[in-house]
Amino acid sequence: KLKIRGYTQFRSASTVGGDKDAVSYWPDKSVGENSSFLIRRARVILYGDVSDNLYVYLQPDFASTPSGSSTGHFGQLRDAYADIAFDQKKEFRVRVGQSKIPFSFENLQSSQNRLALDRNDGLNSCCRDERDIGAFFYWAPAHIRERFKDLVSNNLKGSGDYGVFAFGVYNGQGANRVEQNNDMHMVVRFTYPYMFGNGQIFEAGVQAVHGRFVTSTGPINGVTPIMDAPAKGFKDQRVGVHAVLYPQPFGFQAEWNWGRGPQLNDTQTMLTESSLSGGYVLANYRLNAGQWGMLFPFVKWQHFEGGQKFERNAPHNYVNDWEFGVEWQVTKEIELTAVYHMMNRTDLANAPYERYKADVLRFQLQWNY
Amino acid sequence: KLKIRGYTQFRSASTVGGDKDAVSYWPDKSVGENSSFLIRRARVILYGDVSDNLYVYLQPDFASTPSGSSTGHFGQLRDAYADIAFDQKKEFRVRVGQSKIPFSFENLQSSQNRLALDRNDGLNSCCRDERDIGAFFYWAPAHIRERFKDLVSNNLKGSGDYGVFAFGVYNGQGANRVEQNNDMHMVVRFTYPYMFGNGQIFEAGVQAVHGRFVTSTGPINGVTPIMDAPAKGFKDQRVGVHAVLYPQPFGFQAEWNWGRGPQLNDTQTMLTESSLSGGYVLANYRLNAGQWGMLFPFVKWQHFEGGQKFERNAPHNYVNDWEFGVEWQVTKEIELTAVYHMMNRTDLANAPYERYKADVLRFQLQWNY
Amino acid sequence: KLKIRGYTQFRSASTVGGDKDAVSYWPDKSVGENSSFLIRRARVILYGDVSDNLYVYLQPDFASTPSGSSTGHFGQLRDAYADIAFDQKKEFRVRVGQSKIPFSFENLQSSQNRLALDRNDGLNSCCRDERDIGAFFYWAPAHIRERFKDLVSNNLKGSGDYGVFAFGVYNGQGANRVEQNNDMHMVVRFTYPYMFGNGQIFEAGVQAVHGRFVTSTGPINGVTPIMDAPAKGFKDQRVGVHAVLYPQPFGFQAEWNWGRGPQLNDTQTMLTESSLSGGYVLANYRLNAGQWGMLFPFVKWQHFEGGQKFERNAPHNYVNDWEFGVEWQVTKEIELTAVYHMMNRTDLANAPYERYKADVLRFQLQWNY
Repeated sequence: KLKIRGYTQFRSASTVGGDKDAVSYWPDKSVGENSSFLIRRARVILYGDVSDNLYVYLQPDFASTPSGSSTGHFGQLRDAYADIAFDQKKEFRVRVGQSKIPFSFENLQSSQNRLALDRNDGLNSCCRDERDIGAFFYWAPAHIRERFKDLVSNNLKGSGDYGVFAFGVYNGQGANRVEQNNDMHMVVRFTYPYMFGNGQIFEAGVQAVHGRFVTSTGPINGVTPIMDAPAKGFKDQRVGVHAVLYPQPFGFQAEWNWGRGPQLNDTQTMLTESSLSGGYVLANYRLNAGQWGMLFPFVKWQHFEGGQKFERNAPHNYVNDWEFGVEWQVTKEIELTAVYHMMNRTDLANAPYERYKADVLRFQLQWNY
Repeated sequence: KLKIRGYTQFRSASTVGGDKDAVSYWPDKSVGENSSFLIRRARVILYGDVSDNLYVYLQPDFASTPSGSSTGHFGQLRDAYADIAFDQKKEFRVRVGQSKIPFSFENLQSSQNRLALDRNDGLNSCCRDERDIGAFFYWAPAHIRERFKDLVSNNLKGSGDYGVFAFGVYNGQGANRVEQNNDMHMVVRFTYPYMFGNGQIFEAGVQAVHGRFVTSTGPINGVTPIMDAPAKGFKDQRVGVHAVLYPQPFGFQAEWNWGRGPQLNDTQTMLTESSLSGGYVLANYRLNAGQWGMLFPFVKWQHFEGGQKFERNAPHNYVNDWEFGVEWQVTKEIELTAVYHMMNRTDLANAPYERYKADVLRFQLQWNY
Repeated sequence: KLKIRGYTQFRSASTVGGDKDAVSYWPDKSVGENSSFLIRRARVILYGDVSDNLYVYLQPDFASTPSGSSTGHFGQLRDAYADIAFDQKKEFRVRVGQSKIPFSFENLQSSQNRLALDRNDGLNSCCRDERDIGAFFYWAPAHIRERFKDLVSNNLKGSGDYGVFAFGVYNGQGANRVEQNNDMHMVVRFTYPYMFGNGQIFEAGVQAVHGRFVTSTGPINGVTPIMDAPAKGFKDQRVGVHAVLYPQPFGFQAEWNWGRGPQLNDTQTMLTESSLSGGYVLANYRLNAGQWGMLFPFVKWQHFEGGQKFERNAPHNYVNDWEFGVEWQVTKEIELTAVYHMMNRTDLANAPYERYKADVLRFQLQWNY
């Protein structure tokens, strides 16, 4: 039986200090000059168990813009996958189609549930839009599948069920992008949500990706950088770790990853294979304010140094950001988030990719349906 | 509970007299040479009360073309908003997201219910696609909310409930467009549907918008006009009045607005802030033809002189059109409209923006679902 | 009452022999170098009887890319039509909107049910994406309407009900394309599914299209071919025959068409009106493997020589392909198809449109919902 649900995020931001004119924040166009209100996501999800062994999930986002178009809000796929189960308890599944790459906890956690308005650059830079076309095998025992489910439905900010063990192959150029080589990416992941006697749940795990990525280039100061890579692209590999203490009521979350990938060199004349490293630490608290709803104050620090492979020229991305915020779940359907975001990062959209520092006050209203 | 409904409009037109080769009618591409059938709108609406104080509405139109694409019929948002009510009777609401700007009666009336195939240029030129991203406050007493609802459900061609009093702030560049300045538009509106003792309803009201609009320019005869405006754009302000006698069975409708905005000057070398003025008068009749359905014969006159701000170069738009038509509601779900449209207007798509006169016979088949 | 259903096709292909570097297969981008996984179709269908005489059907495909965009998976219409019936048994109907052109059996058969992964070039080249905007009259007696329905629901690979007699007018430039002339295309079709005493069904029929098609041109080796056609386009006409023995359990299917249309000349300097001819023969078998599902082994041969009118420059398309495949319906919702495709055809995407021979091993996983 097919069902429909979804959520929409409405945003606004004000730069209150720092290099105002230089602000250019790639994950959110409501940040920066000449911007007011923005619909960041407008999701409609068609999903359901259509037979004993087939679960389908199709999710367009109606806040998408085709490349080259000056008009936006078109419906574009995020997910379109089938979960095919091989046993009655659905402990063994293959997910085929476009879906999230099982790398990093924050990448897998839905934006509907995430506290910070955007994901950290460190791990998110692994995978354009977190997704790709491929086939992924997931295994988890039935009682752990139940636990993954409860972590979301009990409002504990879980990631959903991407298995205790995951292995997959995928194109590697990112969601909604055309494959550029014959080489497939591989991903492997292990995670386990351990429950203590008092009910407190702690999850930790490791993951790795490996593949070859084809970068695009364009002119910088009139000169287009050359590429030091074979035709099938640059080496693209990472290994990451994550640890999550779920907010019962105090929560803590940390991830880090290290790897190698394409990066523009210092003189901005050539793309070379370089190392990268980054991650984040998040502390949060789950406060039940009774008739006033739920409150999640949080603080997040993130750091990244490495090439942003899916941006043109794979510019060197330096990030060292602090975020102080609170998510107020007014009702189950209405969420208001305010964040004081202290940015110290790189303008990835405009060559020569300069750094800026700025304090930005950001707001989001989210409605769930 | 989310529900789905929608409607589709299928059109065809023949130029039967006048400057046939010069016909270029921006609201409807089935009008003019080298055109036969057109799907003007293909709407799917996902809507519903998801909780006591949250109503959601998400409407893509599958007759949209991304700018720069030669293939069409993509799904693009018209509306994506949440109505958040502050009281049990929902007399006080805030509408957040992309939605219609409460300016003009005809802009707010759904195309599903409008008699004329397209809106008048005078008031419609206030707001690209009638919508924008913003936050709008609406207030109406419960019994008036009921009356607004009945005016639509009783087939009286109402506008729906945009409050007795409305106030809003929005980006100002138009639906599905990227904001171009830090300046927000404001709108305020008052309207009241008065019911006489015999049940006849008469509605009248006033409205105003104020903001700054950033125009785009392009070459005319090889020369691109310069702009006499600050970086944040031209002054963009209007005040309008409307009066509607609902068709019980004789109906009458009139609107007019006056304002200032960007406009290409007479020598087509510069955009300057100029005055504008325009509106329309419509008379109609509601004829119950029993088993043959419902008939709405109508006549509409419209006039406009002013800059068409959301077209490139904001060309001077002169309009003086007459429309003689009839809408035949064969059943509740199937509507056939025929209009004899006497055009005397400006080609806004092609520089140097010449005027033409033409008589066009237009047809529309609409199905509701 | 509106209902939702759909299906998604996930593909992969390997070139196992022949001119590997030259492979360029227009119907499926998973075939050829530098490609791995592909979502070929991601369909969502909103359909239903909304009143006694109105049936609606609206089908976006979320595997579409706007022309000029480098990002894909946008939702674009395939169908958006209303079936308006004139009698209680719905023997007489008009279908208005964008829908399939009733020419060829394989064009009308849904990709959800087709055995071969793609349609034959011979008849498919009549109509870009099989569809257009227009109005089509369909007539079929009630018991034959039932038979058309059963041929699909009984898993016999039917085409669905496009009438015993069909007549239509349509724009002629193809689905989701803008009309380019004032000339309308016409189509007429007759088909009849005869049932023998033993229940075996045999269908045969004839069809014809007539119109004028406007071709687009672009440079080949730096020179753009000229066109030998009036402004309203080239003559575009075809007549076709089809015969189908439904797989009970042995099936056989053949179609051929002959016609005239635009074609690039041999020296690739001019487009002229030329003749075309092509079709296919398919043999298949329906094997009930009990708990292992259903198996449909098949072999298909196709041949075509003629202009590919809807590709730029209408290049001469030579095709002589063999396909050996099997569709395995694991369950009613999950279908796996493997095909050994021996290609001998033309690269239509890249001037100077050279021929290549290649053996390609192709796979498809389809899930229905």
